[in-house]
Amino acid sequence: MTAKSMEELTSLCKRRGFIFQSSEAYGGMQGIYDFGPLGVELKNNLKTAWWQSMVYERDDVEGLDAAILTPQKVLHYSGHEETFSDPLVDCRNCKKRSRADHIIDGKCPYCGSTELTDPRPFNLMFKTNVGPVEDEESFAYLRPETAQHIFTNFKNVVDSTSRTVPFGIAQIGKSFRNEITPRNFIFRVREFEIMELEYFVKPGTDEDWHQTWVDLRLDWWERQGVSRNAIQLHNVPKDDLAHYSKATLDLMYRFPHGMDELEGIANRTDFDLGSHTKHQSKLGLTADVKSNRDSTVRLAIQDLSTNQWFVPFVIEPSAGVERAILAVLNEAYEIERLENGAERTLLRLPPHLAPIKVAVMPLKRNHEQIVSVARETVKKLQFLGLGRITLENTGNIGKSYRKHDEAGTPMCVTVDFQTLEDDTVTIRDRDSMDQIRLPRTELSAHVTEAIRM
Amino acid sequence: MTAKSMEELTSLCKRRGFIFQSSEAYGGMQGIYDFGPLGVELKNNLKTAWWQSMVYERDDVEGLDAAILTPQKVLHYSGHEETFSDPLVDCRNCKKRSRADHIIDGKCPYCGSTELTDPRPFNLMFKTNVGPVEDEESFAYLRPETAQHIFTNFKNVVDSTSRTVPFGIAQIGKSFRNEITPRNFIFRVREFEIMELEYFVKPGTDEDWHQTWVDLRLDWWERQGVSRNAIQLHNVPKDDLAHYSKATLDLMYRFPHGMDELEGIANRTDFDLGSHTKHQSKLGLTADVKSNRDSTVRLAIQDLSTNQWFVPFVIEPSAGVERAILAVLNEAYEIERLENGAERTLLRLPPHLAPIKVAVMPLKRNHEQIVSVARETVKKLQFLGLGRITLENTGNIGKSYRKHDEAGTPMCVTVDFQTLEDDTVTIRDRDSMDQIRLPRTELSAHVTEAIRM
Repeated sequence: MTAKSMEELTSLCKRRGFIFQSSEAYGGMQGIYDFGPLGVELKNNLKTAWWQSMVYERDDVEGLDAAILTPQKVLHYSGHEETFSDPLVDCRNCKKRSRADHIIDGKCPYCGSTELTDPRPFNLMFKTNVGPVEDEESFAYLRPETAQHIFTNFKNVVDSTSRTVPFGIAQIGKSFRNEITPRNFIFRVREFEIMELEYFVKPGTDEDWHQTWVDLRLDWWERQGVSRNAIQLHNVPKDDLAHYSKATLDLMYRFPHGMDELEGIANRTDFDLGSHTKHQSKLGLTADVKSNRDSTVRLAIQDLSTNQWFVPFVIEPSAGVERAILAVLNEAYEIERLENGAERTLLRLPPHLAPIKVAVMPLKRNHEQIVSVARETVKKLQFLGLGRITLENTGNIGKSYRKHDEAGTPMCVTVDFQTLEDDTVTIRDRDSMDQIRLPRTELSAHVTEAIRM
Repeated sequence: MTAKSMEELTSLCKRRGFIFQSSEAYGGMQGIYDFGPLGVELKNNLKTAWWQSMVYERDDVEGLDAAILTPQKVLHYSGHEETFSDPLVDCRNCKKRSRADHIIDGKCPYCGSTELTDPRPFNLMFKTNVGPVEDEESFAYLRPETAQHIFTNFKNVVDSTSRTVPFGIAQIGKSFRNEITPRNFIFRVREFEIMELEYFVKPGTDEDWHQTWVDLRLDWWERQGVSRNAIQLHNVPKDDLAHYSKATLDLMYRFPHGMDELEGIANRTDFDLGSHTKHQSKLGLTADVKSNRDSTVRLAIQDLSTNQWFVPFVIEPSAGVERAILAVLNEAYEIERLENGAERTLLRLPPHLAPIKVAVMPLKRNHEQIVSVARETVKKLQFLGLGRITLENTGNIGKSYRKHDEAGTPMCVTVDFQTLEDDTVTIRDRDSMDQIRLPRTELSAHVTEAIRM
């Protein structure tokens, strides 16, 4: 159904504890957000769903978790130092800085002055000094993506796992971009997480694998509640391609602020391993790379039939976690008009993504026996290891249902007077609002089945 | 059994793909490590075990996932700007810098000169410039711990969850300390993860809760394979306490480099919320805090029986993920002498921490039917969602067993000729090396039971 505006989503996110402006107590930090009690669960569930699909359910992908602090050389040879920048304009009147593409009619967006400098490139990478001495050489970058450490670790992974092509290395982690103008809630932010797979293939098979990964990723989004028809494929025109790319397919989604990129799937050729390898000239690279005199490792694979070493091509599906959360929340968001004319807000999240799996509610908040059975029911469900199971002891079942509709909790279990007689409970379904009655002994199996589907 | 030296562990970690020196291809970065295919699984499993115990299995803890980039004000009022430093000495001869406590006999550890400056404090926090303008005010720190954002988000969490004391907020995440001398493999590093719980209690109940959390944490370590008698409790003397602490109990573990801190459990009094709250003077704080004129939120709880607002005390169990991994690996590490006189190296990891849960091995690597049944077995186990299940198709069962002993894989399943006749497989136990034969139809239940225990 989707939200009508970003404000609707932002408001729900704050009210229910999904997402807060970071350091709000001190006025907030632009483009930086914190994930609250429900947000951290949604985020972890989404990352787990990606890892399950990319690593656990495949036989050809290894995982990695590399560092954020990255030495200059890595981002020099990757091309980031040279090209990872936005054009920036200074206002000579008010001294403020703006992105060149934000200048309206040649005027400063802050003071309206036309006294502007020519645009010049502003590098988006954060820098920090490492070690006790501050000088030109002792700094590191905060990585702007996770991919580069996958490439620099290529040999380590191949050596420790005996992999050969085709195979992939998957990584999820924090990345940082010093955006000049963060905007659109969690869409364009300065600190975020990416889920990236670098899939290494034999040159010549790259175009087929590119298509395969587009199909696989569309299937995955469907399972997260972002249906195929909510996504448009955008074949990035040759002139707009990043410096490393032979072809890039963007998955475009209609966010509350407009159509924008949800995931990019690129054919990066042999650019990446070729950029970071030693002995570049002996490896027959097709990509145009910087001459590398610093690398100490050969990033190549031996073809056992010909004994020739070659540099694999790379197919990269790369998705931002925050953008994924925004799309998933937006797709799940619904204001439903009920038969009695009232409205309810709900999140129709797929059960495996829901922050709280089950809320257990005693019908009477001070009834000792009912509350005791509810607590025991919660404990039993908690030890299934399915995620968060909470006790909702307000005594107001209707209000609790509404609260958990907004939280996206798929099931609410009520312990009532009949429970004390026949040990059955009611289970209320978030989406249909239908209630069924079930023996408590069957609850674990029922819940496990519903969450795992 | 534990390792004899750090080198034994480091070597296994690199060989099997647990942990690599970061940016090794470019000479490495001191005090920064990457987690390889097995390491990322062990790390995620350990974090999940903590979250399961701290959040999922409790009714009184909420989760949080806040930003790494932290504005100056937060770390000013927390006391980190003033006190989070090590004493540093400059050598007037070779210009190198050293920690004051690393100076031996008044001589520079690099050149032996005695021409040294007096020690002065060196702040351990990394700084980075945020936004397009570089000036004194536009920088942020990389958080040196996760705790501070728990405190600044206290009101957001209370408002969105209706919590009252006692309750806790749990967080796991990257933290950064610009250590002058990183050392001891992953023990003292510049980039690491912490698992922190801030548990808010009514003043007066803090000492009891402190003891409760020490007991709970010791139980948790036991379940991760670090037994009670491998840990010594160290009651930090009053003079050595951090500025915020009323009492701190350190859990000390015998690492390969010596006895050192595994986890700290501190009674932080009302220092933290008191430091970050507005209206400090009206809240009857017991802690000595900086006068705060910037905070916009009241970080307090109303006692509903007296209508009085009070600032909760905080009990904090705080454990480093890397140190946990080092302890868990060390405890699990064993070189076992076999009956035939040979040796095997194995990791006796608890099954829920093992990076690979099951390795399935076809007896013959080129036997179509056997390999096909093995693949089908792998697929079925992978969809249980228990973690990594791998196919090990080398055709050399003995060698594969040894490899998976070193990886800590609890179970190896072999598909052989008998499988083709009666659809049974053998399961070989990592620790006892005993083998049992089981119908394939019972395998999922057997594996689930063994991993979940």
